[in-house]
Amino acid sequence: MPQFLDYSQPDFEAAFTALLSAKREESTDVDDTVADIIAQVRENGDAAVIALTQKFDRIAPTPETLRITTAEVDAAVAQVSQEDRAALEMAATRIRDYHARQLPEDAEWTDEAGATLGWRWTAVSAAGLYVPGGLASYPSSVLMNAIPAKVAGVERLAMVVPTPDGVLNPLVLLAARIAGVDEIYRIGGAQAVAALAYGTATIPPVDKITGPGNAFVAAAKRRVFGKVGIDMIAGPSEILVIADADNDPDWIALDLLSQAEHDESAQSILVTTDAAFGQAVAVAVEKRLETLERRKIAGASWRDNGAIITVPDVAVAAALSNRIAPEHLELCVADVDALSAQITHAGAIFLGQWTPEAIGDYIGGPNHVLPTARSARFSSGLSVLDFMKRTTLARMSPQALRAIGPSAERLARSESLEAHGLSVTARLAKLNE
Amino acid sequence: MPQFLDYSQPDFEAAFTALLSAKREESTDVDDTVADIIAQVRENGDAAVIALTQKFDRIAPTPETLRITTAEVDAAVAQVSQEDRAALEMAATRIRDYHARQLPEDAEWTDEAGATLGWRWTAVSAAGLYVPGGLASYPSSVLMNAIPAKVAGVERLAMVVPTPDGVLNPLVLLAARIAGVDEIYRIGGAQAVAALAYGTATIPPVDKITGPGNAFVAAAKRRVFGKVGIDMIAGPSEILVIADADNDPDWIALDLLSQAEHDESAQSILVTTDAAFGQAVAVAVEKRLETLERRKIAGASWRDNGAIITVPDVAVAAALSNRIAPEHLELCVADVDALSAQITHAGAIFLGQWTPEAIGDYIGGPNHVLPTARSARFSSGLSVLDFMKRTTLARMSPQALRAIGPSAERLARSESLEAHGLSVTARLAKLNE
Repeated sequence: MPQFLDYSQPDFEAAFTALLSAKREESTDVDDTVADIIAQVRENGDAAVIALTQKFDRIAPTPETLRITTAEVDAAVAQVSQEDRAALEMAATRIRDYHARQLPEDAEWTDEAGATLGWRWTAVSAAGLYVPGGLASYPSSVLMNAIPAKVAGVERLAMVVPTPDGVLNPLVLLAARIAGVDEIYRIGGAQAVAALAYGTATIPPVDKITGPGNAFVAAAKRRVFGKVGIDMIAGPSEILVIADADNDPDWIALDLLSQAEHDESAQSILVTTDAAFGQAVAVAVEKRLETLERRKIAGASWRDNGAIITVPDVAVAAALSNRIAPEHLELCVADVDALSAQITHAGAIFLGQWTPEAIGDYIGGPNHVLPTARSARFSSGLSVLDFMKRTTLARMSPQALRAIGPSAERLARSESLEAHGLSVTARLAKLNE
Repeated sequence: MPQFLDYSQPDFEAAFTALLSAKREESTDVDDTVADIIAQVRENGDAAVIALTQKFDRIAPTPETLRITTAEVDAAVAQVSQEDRAALEMAATRIRDYHARQLPEDAEWTDEAGATLGWRWTAVSAAGLYVPGGLASYPSSVLMNAIPAKVAGVERLAMVVPTPDGVLNPLVLLAARIAGVDEIYRIGGAQAVAALAYGTATIPPVDKITGPGNAFVAAAKRRVFGKVGIDMIAGPSEILVIADADNDPDWIALDLLSQAEHDESAQSILVTTDAAFGQAVAVAVEKRLETLERRKIAGASWRDNGAIITVPDVAVAAALSNRIAPEHLELCVADVDALSAQITHAGAIFLGQWTPEAIGDYIGGPNHVLPTARSARFSSGLSVLDFMKRTTLARMSPQALRAIGPSAERLARSESLEAHGLSVTARLAKLNE
């Protein structure tokens, strides 16, 4: 059974604080191994990547076959059913439409002093997308990472995906093709991250690496950060559902389980204004757990990390939710707009009973790469902006320099940076000739 | 003397690549020390912070005196001259005006399927600003970090600044007051970063930490990243000036030196279409170095890291600049707009001979916290967005769920995530009753 918490009980604050700070994931220390792998790839390039791929994935590519060919992709995607292809294409179209609205605007203006100021957004030139192999190889994640990059204007999008024992994943390759991925390499692990960051004879380096991965991939991304940009390091996933009694307990149970089935470390929390409804959801979860394919994982997650919290009203629910800063937040109450307005920290909000979180994972349009482990307090989900950067612009007219230059001279002097001040002084002297 | 490179020479590519990849900074490995300090602060809170402050700054605060009082700030800022105050206030106003334009817009729309989608931006609740002590304690940096936070809507902005031997910096405190900093603590080093990230009895934790610092501060920020957000870890500063012969060599020399005087690891590069002009700038630099207050630092930087590159035309200059992706880029050529349009990677661009880079450090309006060490390829300067985060919104009507739900079911099944699919199936069943 999950934890049951009641806001009206005297021990609530202690129990809630414990829930907030519970560490759900054992961090494996793989940093030394990863440092060694990165050093090998930096030193020996393709040869190191090939040797490590042989060791971990039991295939023996040559420099010529590291890249998956167009013909191989053609053959793989031909195996995808028409229905699956249509579903992927609908998802891609909706994700593209949503992200196209995120394209930022440049600005330029001239102020009273005569200074022309502004900024300009440009795309990252080359990006790398890590896609895990095996069970966690999700075509939806390919779309969610690749489409924002392409919408941003990334010219070269290189994907890496390990193919243990040489098995290609047709849906992953189809998603890559639909999303516009330019190159695909059959490599994975820390060696793939190192190859993308530093480049090899066969794989040109990229400027930014995104995408999920295991502990080795995460450690490698942390290590190459600075040399290239990276996206956030994702922790285990979580959902918070705020629901009143006017909901079907089975629907809410399924929403909680759709988080729990990801991973034993995932966390599903229900906050409800009605204790009896909370009990009904708990019963519905147990019922579904009897038959669910991934009942072992989902059951462990629910038992170890799940919680049902009873609160007196939705205002308290909002306040608790803001303390949790959940990755996914589902609002199933009478006035969802009023409740939504009270939410200050959440990765994504799903409003109303017709919006199960799974819609957001696949087809809604917003990105499913979202801040985990309370990081929605300070970060956002993946977006087009993650594949762009801003250059600020400033241009002084002689008149502007005359107006504001003396203040710069004074501040430079106060910071004992003489040359800074002199670079202004020399120009002002010319103006005053 | 700096390096002289000529694009027309056969060895140019090798020399330029070496310049690009030269490591200018020795990285000190302080990670173990920092890990220990963070552990002490997490375990013993105020007591650890106080003991470490006593050790490193030779002052003995109590929990009651860790915070610098309003009266202390009053007394310190009373020492600031009217002229310095006016300069700081002009800078603050201009920085505020520039950053106010960065405030992002929320969005909401309903698409053809009947799905209401959008996003909402919210501010980080609490931010911490690290300000170094001693020589690197710059009031301009306080403005550049604090104003974007306050423009973003950060409610609680806590600043930490070490006060070795108890000496307060009046200009730094005045900048904090003008910028709207809410709390100031007389602590520094890794212990201050740990206190901000984890909180103590006296210092409530924050959600995001920004601001420059030494190797200990940088290592501490890396370590607390994830628990809180951090800004970029800045490397040594750099400037690239692209200038034709129609410039005053002394002005360009001063612009190069205003970078070089920061730090021996700083880098100043001139790219010019006129070899004779390059020589004239080199002479002007030597002349200025005879009398410059910081000639020892600036001279070492220029000698060890400086370069003058001759190119046949501005198009080549733009291409080289994009490979360097400079933090600061100054364009002093006949047609600055045409050249600017060719720049794809740069932190900040200063257009025309009346815009010395120092204007951007103090008073122009754009932020002076900019991506160093070629990271302008994938990142941007500090902005209001660094103190905000985006929550995505999705709301399905029953009709929308009917239109797009089946695709979500299919994709969930293809990823073997049964509960995801069932959460849609259960709702569609109700709609089809």
